[in-house]
Amino acid sequence: MRKNLFNIGLIVTFALSAVAHYMHWGTTIQFAISCLAILFVAGFLGKATESVAHYAGDRMGGFLNATFGNAAELIIAFFLVKDGMFDVVKASLTGAIIGNLLLVLGASVLAGGLKFKEQNFNIKLASHNASLMTLAVIALFIPAVFAKSLTQKETTQMSLIVAGVLIVAYILWLIFSMVTHKKELSDQVVEHSEPAWSKRTSILFLILATVMVGFESEWLVGTLEEFTSRFGLSELFVGAFLIAIIGNAAEHSAAVMMALKNKIGAAVEIAVGSSLQIALFVAPVLIFSSFFMGNTMDIVFTTYELVAIGVAVIISKSISQDGSSNWYEGVLLLAVYLILGVVFFLV
Amino acid sequence: MRKNLFNIGLIVTFALSAVAHYMHWGTTIQFAISCLAILFVAGFLGKATESVAHYAGDRMGGFLNATFGNAAELIIAFFLVKDGMFDVVKASLTGAIIGNLLLVLGASVLAGGLKFKEQNFNIKLASHNASLMTLAVIALFIPAVFAKSLTQKETTQMSLIVAGVLIVAYILWLIFSMVTHKKELSDQVVEHSEPAWSKRTSILFLILATVMVGFESEWLVGTLEEFTSRFGLSELFVGAFLIAIIGNAAEHSAAVMMALKNKIGAAVEIAVGSSLQIALFVAPVLIFSSFFMGNTMDIVFTTYELVAIGVAVIISKSISQDGSSNWYEGVLLLAVYLILGVVFFLV
Amino acid sequence: MRKNLFNIGLIVTFALSAVAHYMHWGTTIQFAISCLAILFVAGFLGKATESVAHYAGDRMGGFLNATFGNAAELIIAFFLVKDGMFDVVKASLTGAIIGNLLLVLGASVLAGGLKFKEQNFNIKLASHNASLMTLAVIALFIPAVFAKSLTQKETTQMSLIVAGVLIVAYILWLIFSMVTHKKELSDQVVEHSEPAWSKRTSILFLILATVMVGFESEWLVGTLEEFTSRFGLSELFVGAFLIAIIGNAAEHSAAVMMALKNKIGAAVEIAVGSSLQIALFVAPVLIFSSFFMGNTMDIVFTTYELVAIGVAVIISKSISQDGSSNWYEGVLLLAVYLILGVVFFLV
Repeated sequence: MRKNLFNIGLIVTFALSAVAHYMHWGTTIQFAISCLAILFVAGFLGKATESVAHYAGDRMGGFLNATFGNAAELIIAFFLVKDGMFDVVKASLTGAIIGNLLLVLGASVLAGGLKFKEQNFNIKLASHNASLMTLAVIALFIPAVFAKSLTQKETTQMSLIVAGVLIVAYILWLIFSMVTHKKELSDQVVEHSEPAWSKRTSILFLILATVMVGFESEWLVGTLEEFTSRFGLSELFVGAFLIAIIGNAAEHSAAVMMALKNKIGAAVEIAVGSSLQIALFVAPVLIFSSFFMGNTMDIVFTTYELVAIGVAVIISKSISQDGSSNWYEGVLLLAVYLILGVVFFLV
Repeated sequence: MRKNLFNIGLIVTFALSAVAHYMHWGTTIQFAISCLAILFVAGFLGKATESVAHYAGDRMGGFLNATFGNAAELIIAFFLVKDGMFDVVKASLTGAIIGNLLLVLGASVLAGGLKFKEQNFNIKLASHNASLMTLAVIALFIPAVFAKSLTQKETTQMSLIVAGVLIVAYILWLIFSMVTHKKELSDQVVEHSEPAWSKRTSILFLILATVMVGFESEWLVGTLEEFTSRFGLSELFVGAFLIAIIGNAAEHSAAVMMALKNKIGAAVEIAVGSSLQIALFVAPVLIFSSFFMGNTMDIVFTTYELVAIGVAVIISKSISQDGSSNWYEGVLLLAVYLILGVVFFLV
Repeated sequence: MRKNLFNIGLIVTFALSAVAHYMHWGTTIQFAISCLAILFVAGFLGKATESVAHYAGDRMGGFLNATFGNAAELIIAFFLVKDGMFDVVKASLTGAIIGNLLLVLGASVLAGGLKFKEQNFNIKLASHNASLMTLAVIALFIPAVFAKSLTQKETTQMSLIVAGVLIVAYILWLIFSMVTHKKELSDQVVEHSEPAWSKRTSILFLILATVMVGFESEWLVGTLEEFTSRFGLSELFVGAFLIAIIGNAAEHSAAVMMALKNKIGAAVEIAVGSSLQIALFVAPVLIFSSFFMGNTMDIVFTTYELVAIGVAVIISKSISQDGSSNWYEGVLLLAVYLILGVVFFLV
C-alpha cells in the first residue's frame, strides 16, 4: 500500500515537473513541483542503490553505499557546478553537512530519547567519526584562512591538492573501516532489508533513477536563480537549508526510524556517515569535476559557512563522545540548527 | 559568632553606603563602600534564597536555586541595563562566566587537590554541563560573526530569537536534570544546611535582601562611570573582573569549602552551574528586559569577550572531561584566568 | 658499526661546514652542509644529554631531559634571536610544535599501527598533555587577538608576563608529573639505554656538543637569509618546515623506533612532550633572552602560525583522547601536516 503510494508519487511528480518545465509554467510552480519530485526520485535512487549493493556482496556493497549514498546531492550539485553557480554549491554542501549533523542527528536523538531513557552506540566508531569530521573542518578551514594571501592560480592549486588529500583520506577510511578494522567498528550497523527487486531490475532501476535525478536536478537548478530573486531569499539560505533538507529527506526519515527502533547507533552512522561522505568525497569530486570542465571551483568557503560547519561539528562531537544519547542532547543539536537557520535567513 | 560578624558587616556596610550615597561623598569612597556592601547583601540574598528553597520542597526549591542563584548579578546588571550601559553589562556577564569557570573552579580544584591526591565527580553531569556551555558559546559566537552583515533591526530580531532559544534550552535542561534524568545526574549534589530561619522569616528576608541588593546595585552603578574614568580603567576590565568577582564572592567561598570537604562534585556544580545560569538565563532575561524597557540590548559580544568565554569553556572542558581533578588542573585554570586578567587590564 | 658511521658523519660534516663557512663557499652549499651537520650535532647533543641525565639520577635526570631535551632547537633559535630574526624564530617554534604533533606523532602511530592492530597508552597522561597543550594554544592565541589594541610597550609587558606564566606552569608541571603524581602518570615511560660513556666523558661531551651546536647554528643562521631569497622560499616555510624537521630528526627516529617496539606510549610522550617543552619552556626562554639582550621579542604569532598550531593541537587531541591508536589515526595526522605544508609553501 505504502509502496504503491510511493510509486504513484514518484511517477506523478516527475511527470508533472517535466510538463511544467517544457511548457514553461511559472517559476514558483516549477520550483515547488521540482522540490517535491526530488524528494521522490532521491528516495528511489537511494532504494535502488541499496538494492544493487545487496547483490554486490558485503564488501563491494558497503563500498557502493559509501560512495553513492549521497548520489542525489552529488547530481544536484553537479548541475550547479555546470552552471557555474559555485556559491550555491558550497552553500548546499554546507547545508547537507549541518543538516545531517544537527537536524537529522538531532531529530533522531530526540525521537529516540523520548521513547527510551538512554540509548547507547559504539564509542569507538563515534570517536573515529569525530576525528574524521575534525579533519574535514580543518581541511576546509585552512584554505579559507590562507586564501587571502594567494593568487587565483595558487588558490586553484591548493584546492586541487586539498581535495586530493581528502579523497585519499576517505578511501583509506573505507579500507580501515571495511577491511582492516571492520570487526572493531561494526557492532551496530545499519540494517538493510531484503531487496525489493531482482538483481537485473535493481541495476536497471539504478540507471533509471540516476537519469531521473539528473533531469530533475537540471530542472530544479534552472529555476533557482529566478525563484530566489523573486522571493528575496539569499542563495546561501536556499542552498544551505531548502535544497539540503530536500536532498536529505530520505536519510532523515531512515535515521529517525532507526532511533525509534532503539538502534541509535545506526541512526548516528547514517547522519554522521553522510556528512563525512559529503565533506570528504562529494566536495572533492565536485572540485575535480569542475576542473575537468575547465573552470575549477575552489575549496574556499565563506566565513559564514565555515562557522556553521565548525559549530555543527563541535556540538555533535561534544554530544557523541560519551557513546550514549538522551532526549536533551537532541534538543541541543536542534537548538544550534535553529539558531543557524535564523541567522542564515536574516543575512 | 561568625554569623554575628556577618550580620554586623551587612548592616554597617549597607548603612554606610547609603550615607555615602545620599551625602555625596567622594566617588572613590562611594565605590569602595558599595563594593564591600555588595559582598554582604549578595551573601544575604543567597542565604535567603536557599532558605526559601528549603521550605519550597525538593523540586520547586531546585528550580528556585537554579533561577535565582545569580539574583545579585541579575539585579546589578538590571540597573546597568536601565542606564543603557550595555557594554558594561556584557563585560560583567563575561566576567561572571569566566570568573566561575576559571577562578572559582580553579581555586576549588587547586584547594581540594592540595588536600586530596585525586578527587572524582559525576562524569555524566560534567559531560552534559560541557555540552550546555558549548551551546552557550555557540549562541554567543554566531551572532557576533553574522552581525556585520545585518542591519540594526535585524540584529535586534536575531538577539531576541537567540535569547528565546537559550531560555527554552535552559528550561528544558531544568526539566531534564530535575525531572526526567534526575537520578542519573545527582550522585553528589550540593549539600544544603538546615535553614537559618522559619519559613515566614525566610520569605520576608528574601524580599528584604532583594530590595537591599537593588538599592546597593543602583548606588554602585551610579559611581561606576566616574570611578573608571578617574583611575583610567576600562569599563571592560571593571565589568569583567571587579564587578564579577564581587558578585561571585559567595559562590566562590562556598565552592572552595566544598572542595576542601572532598565534595569536588558539588564545587564543580556550583561553578559550572552558575556560569550556565548566567549564559542561558541571566543574559537572555536581560535582553528581554531591555526590550520591554524600549531599548533592546543586542546579544553581540565583542571579540575580546568571546575569546575570553571561548577559552574558558575550552580549558575547563578539557580538564573536566575525565571526571577527576588534581591540583595541577587548578593551576591550569588559574593560569588562563591570570593571562586574561593581564590582557584585559592592558587593553 | 652504526655508531662508528655516526661518529664519522659527525666529524666530517662538522669539519666540512666549518671549512665552507670560513672559506666563504657558495650560500647554497654552505646551507646544505650546515643542515646535514645540524642533524649530527643535534643527535650528539641528545645522546650526551641523555647520558648525563642517566648519571644524575632519576629525578634530576628527568628534569635535565625535560629542560634540555630540545637544546638544539633552543640554541638555533637563540642565534636567530640574536640576529633579530624574530619572524623566523616564531616560524621555527611553530614548525617544531606542529612537526612533533603531526609528523613525528603521525609517523609513529602509522608505523606502529601497520605492525600492530591497536596500540594503547596511558590515557591519564594523554589527557593531561592535551590540557597543557590547550593552555599553550590559549596563551599564544590571546596575545595575538589583543595585540591590535595595544601599544608596543604594552605588547612587550604582556609578552613578558605571559612568558612568565608559561614557565611557571611548566615548572609546576614537572613537579606534578615527577614528584606529586609520578606513579599515576608513568606506566610506560621512555626507555633509556645504558649510557655510552663514563660520567666524566658524558659531561665533557655535553659541553663539547653544546659548543658544536652553537657554532653550527650560527653558521646555518648566517646563510639563511640569502638562501631563502635566492630560492624564492618564504622564511615562514623554511623556518616552519625545513629547520624544524632538521632540528627534530633525532626525536623523530626515536619515536618511530618506540612505536615499532609496541611502546606507543613512549612515542607519544616523546612527540607530545617535546611540543609542550617548545611551547611552555623554549618559547618563553627565548623571550626572556631577547629581553636581556635589549630587544624584546614579543609573543605575538601570526594568524597562519596560530592556525597551524591550533589545528595540530585539535586533531592530535581528538585522536589521542581515547588512549589507543591505529594506523588510520596516523594517516589523519599526516594528512593535516601535508595540507599545512602545501599552504605554507604556497603562501
